[in-house]
Amino acid sequence: MTDTPAPSLTSSLHRPGQILLLSRASGESLIDQIVRTVAARIDDRLLRAGARMPSIRQFAAANGVSAFTVVAAYDKLVARAYLESRRGAGFFIRERAPLNAPGTADAEAMNFSAGVQPGGGMDVVWLIRNMFRATANLQMPGTGVLPQDWLDGPAIANALRAISRQNSNLLLNYGVPQGFLPLRQQLQHKLAELEIAATPEQFVTTSGVTQALDMVAREFTRPGDTVFVDDPAWFLMFGSFAALGAKVVGIPRLADGPDIAQLAELAAIHKPKLYVINSVLHNPSSTSLSAAKAFQILRLAEQHGITIVEDDIYCDMHPGSAVQPATRLASLDQLRRVIYLGGFSKTMAANLRVGFIAASPELAERLADRKMLQTLTTSDIGERVVYKILSEGLYRKHVERIRSRLDGLRARTVRQMERVGLKVDVVSPAGMFVWADAGCDTNVMTEHALSENLLLAPGSLFSPNQLPSSRMRLNVAAMQDPAVWRFLQRELERLA
Amino acid sequence: MTDTPAPSLTSSLHRPGQILLLSRASGESLIDQIVRTVAARIDDRLLRAGARMPSIRQFAAANGVSAFTVVAAYDKLVARAYLESRRGAGFFIRERAPLNAPGTADAEAMNFSAGVQPGGGMDVVWLIRNMFRATANLQMPGTGVLPQDWLDGPAIANALRAISRQNSNLLLNYGVPQGFLPLRQQLQHKLAELEIAATPEQFVTTSGVTQALDMVAREFTRPGDTVFVDDPAWFLMFGSFAALGAKVVGIPRLADGPDIAQLAELAAIHKPKLYVINSVLHNPSSTSLSAAKAFQILRLAEQHGITIVEDDIYCDMHPGSAVQPATRLASLDQLRRVIYLGGFSKTMAANLRVGFIAASPELAERLADRKMLQTLTTSDIGERVVYKILSEGLYRKHVERIRSRLDGLRARTVRQMERVGLKVDVVSPAGMFVWADAGCDTNVMTEHALSENLLLAPGSLFSPNQLPSSRMRLNVAAMQDPAVWRFLQRELERLA
Repeated sequence: MTDTPAPSLTSSLHRPGQILLLSRASGESLIDQIVRTVAARIDDRLLRAGARMPSIRQFAAANGVSAFTVVAAYDKLVARAYLESRRGAGFFIRERAPLNAPGTADAEAMNFSAGVQPGGGMDVVWLIRNMFRATANLQMPGTGVLPQDWLDGPAIANALRAISRQNSNLLLNYGVPQGFLPLRQQLQHKLAELEIAATPEQFVTTSGVTQALDMVAREFTRPGDTVFVDDPAWFLMFGSFAALGAKVVGIPRLADGPDIAQLAELAAIHKPKLYVINSVLHNPSSTSLSAAKAFQILRLAEQHGITIVEDDIYCDMHPGSAVQPATRLASLDQLRRVIYLGGFSKTMAANLRVGFIAASPELAERLADRKMLQTLTTSDIGERVVYKILSEGLYRKHVERIRSRLDGLRARTVRQMERVGLKVDVVSPAGMFVWADAGCDTNVMTEHALSENLLLAPGSLFSPNQLPSSRMRLNVAAMQDPAVWRFLQRELERLA
Repeated sequence: MTDTPAPSLTSSLHRPGQILLLSRASGESLIDQIVRTVAARIDDRLLRAGARMPSIRQFAAANGVSAFTVVAAYDKLVARAYLESRRGAGFFIRERAPLNAPGTADAEAMNFSAGVQPGGGMDVVWLIRNMFRATANLQMPGTGVLPQDWLDGPAIANALRAISRQNSNLLLNYGVPQGFLPLRQQLQHKLAELEIAATPEQFVTTSGVTQALDMVAREFTRPGDTVFVDDPAWFLMFGSFAALGAKVVGIPRLADGPDIAQLAELAAIHKPKLYVINSVLHNPSSTSLSAAKAFQILRLAEQHGITIVEDDIYCDMHPGSAVQPATRLASLDQLRRVIYLGGFSKTMAANLRVGFIAASPELAERLADRKMLQTLTTSDIGERVVYKILSEGLYRKHVERIRSRLDGLRARTVRQMERVGLKVDVVSPAGMFVWADAGCDTNVMTEHALSENLLLAPGSLFSPNQLPSSRMRLNVAAMQDPAVWRFLQRELERLA
């Protein structure tokens, strides 16, 4: 990868003969027409590897389509390895072989971790940093956590007090790398209710799902390897995987799970090592996987040798498959090809930093060794707190309260979103997130919002390529302040 | 790197003309004579790259020297990149260029993390795993921690109770990636006493020094890069660095610090990215760096562009430079080229998992971003406990008690070691470790000891190449059980 300017294609694409012949009457979407045509030109070597594509604006103007159509098309071309996005420099025709040169992924990782502004998108690290600097007067309607008063602070404090009264030598020695055994026994029961059979030896506790993802990615990927994620998906892992030199490719997420045709096509192209997926209450859409898609995913994983990482962090916000359909990949596969991740940051307390991995016995042992090399052990304190709350049966009532509170707010909040001009095409019957469409670049909205002490979660954050988007994540539990609605109404009126 | 058998050199070295001409009368040690002669033969292409060296036993027999002389010589030749040690297969002449092919380090890392038995050494991962499975009836005279009753369990429990009584919402949200601010302010004072100036923004808390080392290594190294460590040194980091694909090279540690001539020579050969060193109370010898050597290290680091990682985990077991000489690299360099690591696992409680990094403001910010991608944040609980104990002034008295208790035991315990037949050439006036010489392969002793429920810490553990050694680490605080002495006496008598 070089930083010297590559010959621009703009001029040639501006010549009438070079403009793509797009048809609004065709049964094929404009996006797919662009993808097909550009891909064919690259395959036919009419577009040279290394050449720069026209900017999104230029391409849109030249072809009489919206910028969002171009963004979506470029995004698909990136996922199909026809284009690459170079941070700050635009889109370039990619060398077709070899795929995933380690150097490229590595260089991107460096930019990422240094917080360099990605081309056209928000700076993810910068935005996340800000989330941790949240002050009382910063409203965060797109936050990934519940408001403090929805959680049970006193229960945590009581558990902590009880632990401080136990044998005072509890904390003097290192724990065991696998984690506090009684907690792992509780997790065995928790997973059994989800029809996943696992012995305590199959669990390794982690400092939240974040560390779990980092550990699994380090176990399975080498620089240059590909990891599949949902598109959209939780942004922090893009940076975490990029820092390992892995290439992150997004699989478009529909209302009932991934686009299976694209998953099949991209799996054949990229041969990914891992596929990280929220099967239940996907972040940021709160939708869940259908049983049929779960089965298809596992078949494709089998066929292409992909290890599935099922991130089930929002598990307890779902009322259970008896109430609403929800299929977990691990329930079908029983931890053979699926690694199951969970945690208590969303429904108990983020600061306890308690997450876990459930895996095959052999893999769990390897991951425990890896954890030992990375951090020796996790502290028992948080694990003892979680154990105490789970074992005393307080937790079940607590998460029921959270779910019914969300149920009480959801429909009303979505109606209010629609009144101010947001489009909501899918409303999940559970979970806290709404993946709303603002009909304009939400990066621009986010900049405006910041000047009014509002921190939004724009769609670009959730895009594996940080591409601009008209979507944004909203949290129905965090939209009770009128200032949020005043801002949204004003901003969306200005655009209408 | 290939696993197919390479032509053996044994036969040619067995031919009289090929036997090295070693002289006991020469001013040069036998080890250095072997190193010089073998290196010259490789330089002169008399020994081919890829060929297998004779086994240690064969070489010793052919040249009439002890196995330990050969081990030490091979070890130096590995450090100088003349030989490489292939786990389970022996020593091989290395390709002289390019140094540090990424594939090699990676393959070694895989073996390491999978717990494969290294050639001739103990399985480090296996031994460490056992340390965490320590039961009441397993004696560990070489342990790296103080016995429980030396630590202040009630103080930890009190601090935990006090935290549980504070605002019950304390733990509901994520903390900040840099760590709990009041603790970082306390750390500022702690470092000021060591003449290291650092603002709270220059600290990042970690889950122990283990995570600190992992984070720093991930920030500075790419697969194939070289990291220098003391030889001997703390074993866990060898595995941690190898898992990152880094090549670990040991710098021989003398009573007053590293062998500077070798450091200079090896720095020129390897161009290492990092040099991890215990300047004060080196593990496993408890010796400290002289001021002159500290200055020379920094000059060499400057000259070769090496970043120094000063692991000062045993800091509080030292009475201070006013009482005993101790020079910290960070006190000279003021966190420009030196990254300072510390923690509270040894003197407060390992299970709190509280360590920290102090670095330049720019690097501290990058490391906080990296921590965010790896684990989001560390839990505030342990950090609040440490803060409370530090800020209430309980800690100073506590570590004074530990030091005077160690002082009371040290001379007596060393005399007892000598009585049972151990050789102790350097006795540090502070710290808990003695790096004793058993005059026999301590791997073999460790195997015997295990059958009697004793877990030793053999020298091979502390060798960057896991080479067998006659040394072992003993902890003067953990040798009060007569069973330990009975075993040592019997084992050493058998050999005498």
